[in-house]
Amino acid sequence: MAAGGFHSSNQMAGGGEVEERSSNPRGAGAGAGGGGGESRVPEIRKDSVQNRWVIFSPARSRRPSDLRSKFSTSTGNPPDPHSQNCPFCLGNEHLCAPEIFRVHPSHSAHWKLRVIQNLYPALSRDELPVQPEQVDDESSSKTSSSSSKIGNNKVAGFGFHDVVIEAPFHSLQLLDLSPAEIGDVLLAYKKRILQLRSYHSIQYVQVFKNHGASAGASLSHSHSQIIALPVVPTAASARIDCMKQHFEQTGKCNLCEVQVDDLLIDESAHFISIVPFAATFPFEIWIIPRDHSSHFHEVDNEKAVDLGGLLKLLLRKISSQLNDPPYNMMIHTTPFHINPSCLTYTHWFLQIVPQLTIVGGFEVGTGCHINPIFPEDAAKVLREVQL
Amino acid sequence: MAAGGFHSSNQMAGGGEVEERSSNPRGAGAGAGGGGGESRVPEIRKDSVQNRWVIFSPARSRRPSDLRSKFSTSTGNPPDPHSQNCPFCLGNEHLCAPEIFRVHPSHSAHWKLRVIQNLYPALSRDELPVQPEQVDDESSSKTSSSSSKIGNNKVAGFGFHDVVIEAPFHSLQLLDLSPAEIGDVLLAYKKRILQLRSYHSIQYVQVFKNHGASAGASLSHSHSQIIALPVVPTAASARIDCMKQHFEQTGKCNLCEVQVDDLLIDESAHFISIVPFAATFPFEIWIIPRDHSSHFHEVDNEKAVDLGGLLKLLLRKISSQLNDPPYNMMIHTTPFHINPSCLTYTHWFLQIVPQLTIVGGFEVGTGCHINPIFPEDAAKVLREVQL
Repeated sequence: MAAGGFHSSNQMAGGGEVEERSSNPRGAGAGAGGGGGESRVPEIRKDSVQNRWVIFSPARSRRPSDLRSKFSTSTGNPPDPHSQNCPFCLGNEHLCAPEIFRVHPSHSAHWKLRVIQNLYPALSRDELPVQPEQVDDESSSKTSSSSSKIGNNKVAGFGFHDVVIEAPFHSLQLLDLSPAEIGDVLLAYKKRILQLRSYHSIQYVQVFKNHGASAGASLSHSHSQIIALPVVPTAASARIDCMKQHFEQTGKCNLCEVQVDDLLIDESAHFISIVPFAATFPFEIWIIPRDHSSHFHEVDNEKAVDLGGLLKLLLRKISSQLNDPPYNMMIHTTPFHINPSCLTYTHWFLQIVPQLTIVGGFEVGTGCHINPIFPEDAAKVLREVQL
Repeated sequence: MAAGGFHSSNQMAGGGEVEERSSNPRGAGAGAGGGGGESRVPEIRKDSVQNRWVIFSPARSRRPSDLRSKFSTSTGNPPDPHSQNCPFCLGNEHLCAPEIFRVHPSHSAHWKLRVIQNLYPALSRDELPVQPEQVDDESSSKTSSSSSKIGNNKVAGFGFHDVVIEAPFHSLQLLDLSPAEIGDVLLAYKKRILQLRSYHSIQYVQVFKNHGASAGASLSHSHSQIIALPVVPTAASARIDCMKQHFEQTGKCNLCEVQVDDLLIDESAHFISIVPFAATFPFEIWIIPRDHSSHFHEVDNEKAVDLGGLLKLLLRKISSQLNDPPYNMMIHTTPFHINPSCLTYTHWFLQIVPQLTIVGGFEVGTGCHINPIFPEDAAKVLREVQL
């Protein structure tokens, strides 16, 4: 191990982590590196070879390095501090970054969920000055005809990175909450999304949950995250393009028309759950609103409770059948500032991905995954689980 | 744990693994599932919401379940069998699937590298009958106007999945080989790619290497893999579209013109190595041919040795500075059957990705990664490493 090197045995934090997994790059940044990451503001760059946005976030490398060795990269839950030291537990609010709002139960003075700022946000809440060298696709073609950087697009790293603490007590996981309580979590997402929509430069909001260390969670206290972006990420653009193509071919919304057949897992009044026809991951689940809806934030109170019940059922099935696997949950909604004509064919859905496979070079290289379980087999297993 | 459930603590095999990590889905397939994965042939399906190809591979779930518990998901090298049991070691050829070809050193009867079939291939080498329900984008618009599956595209899972055993001895890693020996590995890739090109239905070949268990390797004996696909994977299509767009704007090949500046790591006679401007991963490296070249298989003997030397240097730098991290290495080439006019702007490159971050729900959901290390800082670290 070279002096000043970086210990790879303790993994660096990607977007999945919240608070404490350290990623201080001793070999780079303020140390051996020349950029002095400490003083830099986040930046979002576009790779113009691979067509991807990437967030460069120096704050993510400022997390306390003395905690570096606390987290292994094994599966299952992270070796969390006892609840008395857990910043997300009731009574430890002072250990957290500022609160955005909280929700009280009807007969208690205690909060039942809180939405707070992330202590180590991927993006800066401060409006950053537009950098002089900022260029976009069109201007780059006019100003830099003789040479090119790989990806000469970048924008200031303005945005929001929030945490939703889903319950006040350390022992509760999302699947332990009642349908109405899960509905409250979903309505907190909605409330925060509507707040974020008021910022003109915010284009897209990604709600996600990481459960288990190998799924990216660094604290086991049940929580989810909300990142608001000033760009539309590649996956959302690709999804909209696909749904548009289907609409142009058939005149129908792809997800309104979804043919479930042997892919169905469970249904509720307002939602269906399936394993998608070309599931990227084994036992991947999509929950789709029955009625056409482009934006998650259109969900009302009744639908939130209904969705809460279906989500609880599916999380219990996964936990039971797959032995409480690490998982990711993502809400795929539609960008804010979209041409109204696109609302005809964009349809939000919720995705659950149990982390059962390791991503290797084939997947990183091609974007094509290998799934050993046919979706209709996975759907049958999940449909028939006895709880 | 429900009877018949699936143990998530032993991760299932994605494309990254070669031989032995078990992923027998007892809860699905021939067990609780209805599809009977054992008797099914591989299938490649297109998700028409997310625009992704996914390989469904029942053979990947046939690996011996008694080996399931042998592999943890921790970082570092997998707990490999002793070399006497390692199927890739000299003398254990009988433990492997059939050999495709081998390379001998000039003064020895022993082989120095072997290209073999993967014992548990993701795709079937047998030409599969076209399935009656097979449809493509265009025909689907004509035949299924009233209902849609999510992704109504699928093709038979025909293709090749090979393993390149890079050295005869268990203790040698790729970085231990000489530039000429690494050149031989690269020339073995080339030879196999040229063989695969003779199959008309093969569209794309992905060469990749997984080093370390958390990067997807299930055997520590140094090896890489070659998967030949009957479709062009999403990442390759997106890359070609991006390079085309750049060419239309500037009249230049994006990678011929790459402005390295503070992103340069090292150079050789025929190649440069950089951290890309919008590196998706911390300490990601690209090795790019100086001269315009669309296909990796255009590399000649001299360039292969030159590339071998640069690759060795970079792998040693990563190992030294990042404490021998798990890593993936991918060769990004151009599809076989491409319009000759596209060859002007497609330029192959080799990518190395140390596995230092955990992918969480944000990345899975958006395709946008969060990188705590600015590329110019990472490049400076790697440029200045003293070996």
